[in-house]
Amino acid sequence: MPHIDVGNDAPGILGLMRFRPRTADPLNDLAEALLRAPSTLTRGERELIAAYVSRGNNCTFCTNGHAELAAQQLAGGLPAVRRVLDDHDVSGLSDKLTALLTVADLVRRGGREVTQESVAAARKAGATDVEIHDTVLIAAAFCMYNRYVDGLATRLPDDPDSYRRNAAHVIEHGYGK
Amino acid sequence: MPHIDVGNDAPGILGLMRFRPRTADPLNDLAEALLRAPSTLTRGERELIAAYVSRGNNCTFCTNGHAELAAQQLAGGLPAVRRVLDDHDVSGLSDKLTALLTVADLVRRGGREVTQESVAAARKAGATDVEIHDTVLIAAAFCMYNRYVDGLATRLPDDPDSYRRNAAHVIEHGYGK
Repeated sequence: MPHIDVGNDAPGILGLMRFRPRTADPLNDLAEALLRAPSTLTRGERELIAAYVSRGNNCTFCTNGHAELAAQQLAGGLPAVRRVLDDHDVSGLSDKLTALLTVADLVRRGGREVTQESVAAARKAGATDVEIHDTVLIAAAFCMYNRYVDGLATRLPDDPDSYRRNAAHVIEHGYGK
Repeated sequence: MPHIDVGNDAPGILGLMRFRPRTADPLNDLAEALLRAPSTLTRGERELIAAYVSRGNNCTFCTNGHAELAAQQLAGGLPAVRRVLDDHDVSGLSDKLTALLTVADLVRRGGREVTQESVAAARKAGATDVEIHDTVLIAAAFCMYNRYVDGLATRLPDDPDSYRRNAAHVIEHGYGK
């Protein structure tokens, strides 16, 4: 049962954002800046980092939503994404993205868990300082979104296909549109 | 040693925000909405929640900065705030704020750690649904800010008095101004 009455039937963070528009705007702006603004990391790669952190935090709503966003923007689709998330099978990923996922998972465990070695490995695999920065902030941001969604015990969608439809909408229009 | 070269000598999140203005704007807007916009929780109470979570995450920069922001906006000043953060001495706080700090600390440990009982206790102590929502999101947001600051191994200020001056500036002008 949800911890608070959000007064609408939208699932996950969508219901919270309708309940509290004042905080919804900067939360959507941050997602847009991190996951969709021009970057040398593709949108699919950034969504995979978001989904990977959400999976590590056991946040079902965010994992399923961002897995779809990754799948619709990466070769291999949902089966390939779920292999990364559920089986930690990174055999289809670039060395750079694999190293950045390692950094992201350390951030998820705690800011002080990130080692010089993990950052050096990402750099050796071709990651720039901006890419390392953005990976750390994507991982940190999903430690927020995941806690927001689960800390208020929001409900999951009744129709599992809604993750796919929501992802297609975000890809076309952007976050919060 | 910092994990990336931010190209400026500002400490903590301030250096990161100069390095990456695109993400600085929504991060500042979120802090402004959560910690300073009109609310039935005072600015001092909200800053204390932020400092409490940061202390739990062992983020020195955020703890010291938001401890000063709380201290300058609460009766009792810095000694009273540090007793809450360092000794978990909540004897000077209202029952409502004490219950909200408990919820915030559970959010910090993980979204799924928040219990129906902790939320019911906050409600019994007078907290509204909006106050519970905002407490959960403040705690979640500082799980992001803390990981951002420490995940990139940012440096601390050379002059410890800068926390006090920065806090006074934010109180007068707002976040990111």
